[in-house]
Amino acid sequence: MTKHKKTFTLIIVAVIFFMFSCKNEETAVSSDAKSEIAPTQQHPKLILTAQGVQAIRAQLGRIPIFDSSLQKVKEEIDAEIALGIEVPIPKDYSGGYTHVRHKRNWVVLQKAGLLYQILDDEKYAKYVKDMLMAYEELYKTLPLHPKTRSYARGKLFWQCLNDSNWLVYVSQAYDCIYNYLTEEERNTLETNLFRPFADHISVDSPQFYQRVHNHSTWGNAAVGMIGLVMNDQELIDRALYGIKDLKLDTKEKDDDGGFLNKDGKAGFLANIEEPFSPDGYYNEGPYYQRYAMYPFLVFAEGLLNVKPELNIFDYKEGVLLKSINALLNLSDADGEFFPLNDGQKGMSYYNSALVTAVNVSYYHGDQDAGLLSIAKQQDQVLLNDSGLAVALGIRDGKEKPFNKKSINLSDGPKGEQGGVAILRHEDIELVFKYAAQGSSHGHYDKLSYSLYEKGEEILQDYGLARFVNIEQKGGGNYLKENKTWAKQTIAHNTLTQNETSHFNGKYDIGSQHHSVLNYFSSDNENVQVASARETNAYPETEMLRTMAIIKDEDFEKPYLLDIMKVTSNKANQYDFPYYFFGQVIQTNFEYNTPEILKPLGTKNGYQHLFVEGIAKANDKNSKFTWMNNRKFYTLTTITDRKDDLLFTRIGANDPDFNLRRDPALLLRRKNAKGTTFVSVIEAHGSYSPISESAVNTKSNIKELKVVLDTAAYTAIQITDLKGNIKLFITANINTSKEEKHNLKINDKNYEWSGSYYFK
Amino acid sequence: MTKHKKTFTLIIVAVIFFMFSCKNEETAVSSDAKSEIAPTQQHPKLILTAQGVQAIRAQLGRIPIFDSSLQKVKEEIDAEIALGIEVPIPKDYSGGYTHVRHKRNWVVLQKAGLLYQILDDEKYAKYVKDMLMAYEELYKTLPLHPKTRSYARGKLFWQCLNDSNWLVYVSQAYDCIYNYLTEEERNTLETNLFRPFADHISVDSPQFYQRVHNHSTWGNAAVGMIGLVMNDQELIDRALYGIKDLKLDTKEKDDDGGFLNKDGKAGFLANIEEPFSPDGYYNEGPYYQRYAMYPFLVFAEGLLNVKPELNIFDYKEGVLLKSINALLNLSDADGEFFPLNDGQKGMSYYNSALVTAVNVSYYHGDQDAGLLSIAKQQDQVLLNDSGLAVALGIRDGKEKPFNKKSINLSDGPKGEQGGVAILRHEDIELVFKYAAQGSSHGHYDKLSYSLYEKGEEILQDYGLARFVNIEQKGGGNYLKENKTWAKQTIAHNTLTQNETSHFNGKYDIGSQHHSVLNYFSSDNENVQVASARETNAYPETEMLRTMAIIKDEDFEKPYLLDIMKVTSNKANQYDFPYYFFGQVIQTNFEYNTPEILKPLGTKNGYQHLFVEGIAKANDKNSKFTWMNNRKFYTLTTITDRKDDLLFTRIGANDPDFNLRRDPALLLRRKNAKGTTFVSVIEAHGSYSPISESAVNTKSNIKELKVVLDTAAYTAIQITDLKGNIKLFITANINTSKEEKHNLKINDKNYEWSGSYYFK
Repeated sequence: MTKHKKTFTLIIVAVIFFMFSCKNEETAVSSDAKSEIAPTQQHPKLILTAQGVQAIRAQLGRIPIFDSSLQKVKEEIDAEIALGIEVPIPKDYSGGYTHVRHKRNWVVLQKAGLLYQILDDEKYAKYVKDMLMAYEELYKTLPLHPKTRSYARGKLFWQCLNDSNWLVYVSQAYDCIYNYLTEEERNTLETNLFRPFADHISVDSPQFYQRVHNHSTWGNAAVGMIGLVMNDQELIDRALYGIKDLKLDTKEKDDDGGFLNKDGKAGFLANIEEPFSPDGYYNEGPYYQRYAMYPFLVFAEGLLNVKPELNIFDYKEGVLLKSINALLNLSDADGEFFPLNDGQKGMSYYNSALVTAVNVSYYHGDQDAGLLSIAKQQDQVLLNDSGLAVALGIRDGKEKPFNKKSINLSDGPKGEQGGVAILRHEDIELVFKYAAQGSSHGHYDKLSYSLYEKGEEILQDYGLARFVNIEQKGGGNYLKENKTWAKQTIAHNTLTQNETSHFNGKYDIGSQHHSVLNYFSSDNENVQVASARETNAYPETEMLRTMAIIKDEDFEKPYLLDIMKVTSNKANQYDFPYYFFGQVIQTNFEYNTPEILKPLGTKNGYQHLFVEGIAKANDKNSKFTWMNNRKFYTLTTITDRKDDLLFTRIGANDPDFNLRRDPALLLRRKNAKGTTFVSVIEAHGSYSPISESAVNTKSNIKELKVVLDTAAYTAIQITDLKGNIKLFITANINTSKEEKHNLKINDKNYEWSGSYYFK
Repeated sequence: MTKHKKTFTLIIVAVIFFMFSCKNEETAVSSDAKSEIAPTQQHPKLILTAQGVQAIRAQLGRIPIFDSSLQKVKEEIDAEIALGIEVPIPKDYSGGYTHVRHKRNWVVLQKAGLLYQILDDEKYAKYVKDMLMAYEELYKTLPLHPKTRSYARGKLFWQCLNDSNWLVYVSQAYDCIYNYLTEEERNTLETNLFRPFADHISVDSPQFYQRVHNHSTWGNAAVGMIGLVMNDQELIDRALYGIKDLKLDTKEKDDDGGFLNKDGKAGFLANIEEPFSPDGYYNEGPYYQRYAMYPFLVFAEGLLNVKPELNIFDYKEGVLLKSINALLNLSDADGEFFPLNDGQKGMSYYNSALVTAVNVSYYHGDQDAGLLSIAKQQDQVLLNDSGLAVALGIRDGKEKPFNKKSINLSDGPKGEQGGVAILRHEDIELVFKYAAQGSSHGHYDKLSYSLYEKGEEILQDYGLARFVNIEQKGGGNYLKENKTWAKQTIAHNTLTQNETSHFNGKYDIGSQHHSVLNYFSSDNENVQVASARETNAYPETEMLRTMAIIKDEDFEKPYLLDIMKVTSNKANQYDFPYYFFGQVIQTNFEYNTPEILKPLGTKNGYQHLFVEGIAKANDKNSKFTWMNNRKFYTLTTITDRKDDLLFTRIGANDPDFNLRRDPALLLRRKNAKGTTFVSVIEAHGSYSPISESAVNTKSNIKELKVVLDTAAYTAIQITDLKGNIKLFITANINTSKEEKHNLKINDKNYEWSGSYYFK
């Protein structure tokens, strides 16, 4: 279906072209669209096609967002050309001079190639040719990159991954000037540069290439794209299916602790098959999906154009396009991706990979008008066929808002390995993670969550411990604190038992398990619930977490009700942190602040937390109000006098100041077997430092109470300040939508259908 | 001169009125502009005049920003009227219910009065009358406010200050409905409410009223404005000159430690005379100027309208209007005021007092088109004569950008008590404070500074320790940490000697002294310098600080060169902190991070600093690079191996979490007599979490070196990475612009005129 639409669009574009192309005739004739060559074998053919070039040239000057994107790229590349070509001998890690230069070159080459095609100005073709020849000169002399830290060293870069990045872009540049080059020049480049380059990152680096991992996706796409340009079926097959007849040791691990090749799968198709769930969730999370997205989509576009018979966008029921929708939904109100697993905060759909994703999704998908509004925010389009389609859509006023809704995304190749639930109402967003391990970039954070208000974090997920591409901080690579802190359970808003991380922090164990959905319900906008169970993180302990975003008319904003039911036969210590931001405004418990700050523990992340305040909890409810970004928030949690409350701050045992000094309130329950943590987080009020007015600074909850807690049901009573009483009952088992429930609490009968009751 | 222009404007407005007022004739007739009454005795007459009402009515619907301001006020007041009148018995501190309600009422009354005049709708007059009558009923029954914390308790509020706020606003409401009321009604209100109200805040509370202080300014204006409405010369005189024949004990102090009445001055004119310097700098700093501004300006407007013979806007050479310009220049790129002394961060020229200031300054000043651009940003105007003038100016497209330039503002009634220098170039702003104590809200921060980039703090001034109007935090009042931390010298980017604050932290001593300007030069945009001397903060030690903002073409952005020359006969310990924000990126010195955090000291603010890192400085230059808000900064400072470098963090001994956990790097030089601290702060580069590109992450300075340091001159050599060498020589004495200098350094002769040399 998506293919039909695409064909239709092309026809329209072609018609428009013939209507308006008179004055461009000369230009058009000088292009490479020669009728005797099959369209799939004309150059360019990867992400920009010969037909696309004609359509674009016909529209230039009348497609504002395309025109301005083109103008920006032209200015950028003209400035680069003025500076001259630099192809230095490889030397540095990420962030260092040679790394940055070669990285810049791949961008410049790809863009210059596009400019040549669109503007039909030989200057760009010559520039690309000269630089490619300089690379040819250099590459044939190169040993392995001198820096030794990678499990798979590249030649231009310290890791094969970056070499692959280079080839994914540069194959596009080569495609664009293919017909500009003589056959001899092409032979030189292919023999001395592209073919050995493709071999180095594949057959010479199987530990990098022959696996299911975002690294390999780049490798596969790189080999495949240069294969498409060179029309080399062997490379194309190697890209699609992996290195023929190669089997790797399935026990070996990479730098990040991930298995190199656990079940022997490899190649681009396997890399689509494995990491994406049928809903399009990528198992490493949105930050890495964004990174992997680009090679997935540009290689897929190339395949569609050159090997249309593969129907690549229909592969696995159209999962590539579904994954773009999933990724856009995994962003907050500002378009920033939720930093699940190793995710760097601030990465957003303004990233250029998402320009590709949005353009490709619009063009090859069903022309969702919501995507146009994101493209407009991005304020740029691709300089190719799909970018043209988006530019035309925007020009013709077709855009609609992209409405992010509550969504439940399954994880696992077949969608049977837990998932991620996002509950949204008004400005409140809950991200509840009950997924599988998330490959080598996964964290030990079963049933963890983060909470947002209008793009701002209320309760944070720490993200990764890394300053990506900042050379002074460990070469821009993962810092040791990523393992000792960021991945550990205590770094997350979930339960840590006996000061050990889930699965003992062991990847081998974690990667065998996943949480299981109890139920998800977002039909009633005012009471949205996600509930999931984890039984393997602590073998003899079961955790069932039910999270509801409830909009009650007596409350200013939707609030979060969080029920964590823990079942265990042994007495354990449970730690339950809340990673808030900002300043302490009020507590209803008395705390002491130690004069000397000591770490909370010695391992599993505890060594990184300073204890700033110590309290015994209140009987019944403990309350804590804080202020951040000029808004107020209150936690109300059910406690008894045996519970401890600790104010902590990250930063202990951090000899290089690699960690942010962020605070938390930590609820500690000792010597408990089965226990249920019940909390409400309210967002309320505001403060203006301009008018100095403080509005609604206090919680609206008078009391939170468990009125029933059995294997089958947990019932929570919420009383507000005015005395209004609400009851929330969640079904812990038998949660199908049709299931009828009948329950007596304090001599009153409750009857309902479905997974929960709220009234 | 300003008066003439004003008269001229009024004539124009009147002409326009007669040209367009036909359809408003009925309305105009029903207004209170009766010809037999002198214009100065018609009502309204304070900030809205009878003529103004006519001019406004004639323009309604054709003055966009006025129309929208009116619409907003109308909606706000209509909603309030619908809710009904509430005049509760006073009970609470700031932030509490009765406080908030009475505060809201004064706003509502004032606005409803304006609506009655402008819209000529009796509904508003009746509402004002009914609420005033309710206040009359209540007020005559009231004892002192039950809360006892204030040195001058009010009746409606816990402090006379807020009672005065109330009367400043409510006198305007009374003025607006004066003619609507019967004489009997006016008698009732004046006898039972206004007169005793004015007496309570003045003759009954002389410790509040009879002094030079922002509190008294409110009191004076309150008494004066109701006096103007009631045409009561005794009250007007009491407002202008203070309580007749009253002398207070000059030794007594208020809650904040300020003298109640040190030299016996009092009244509105003394309150203009004393706190404003001839340049319009207000001695308590911009945060309190903003607060005091409103009563100064509205009472002045009232005086101008009712007592034009006083020429109030020409008083002290027009200092009131000059002060508005000074205040606007004391804001950063976002319009937020520099938090000198007790200043709350985030307060800005969007505050409603600044709407008044900008409108008044435009109307009564020389119609500076730059003010219109600020008014446009504020997106509202006053609903009175001056607001009309601004609205007409904006409508007629007269606005120009308000360009903030480098400025040197003297402090002290005669401009002879130091000052504040602001150096601006491109996005960099330096705020260098060499002022007097700043009254009771002053900090012990001689020669301190803060540094901004495009409205963001690079090196911060902590501001105050207070959550204004947030009841849960100490009733919204000053916290004890304001004294123990925020006011102390170590909380500022300046020199602390032997772990004691300037003037031993004693207000009595501090308020006798001020720093002295050495020189100020902003003629050459690329080399702007401010230099000042402090000899009293530590009696046997002299500090001479010279700060230059230098734009060198070999550097990406302007940098700060900071030379603090200390002269002393005794060996002392000097602490020199840098209150940066964000994350440590790199140092060129090795540091240890203690596993346990301890406070740096036991008193004078040191008890609030945790030590997070300890280092011995490098020989020659110590360097520290950090990242904040996606930008990089580097400190390069001249050190030797005896110097200590400490990473600190605020928050020790803070039992209620009242302080922000902000970091600093502290340079400590022990056992030194005379010594010169020389540092450069560079802003450079950027980081994008979206493209993950890190640009220009490193300092451009290779070496910083003192090549000469005598009583007369200090010469600093700056070598950049490319080896370019620049020399900065500052004259420590004889700094007149005309002075010729001739100096030999390393056998080379330097000759120049003026205070500094740079090449």
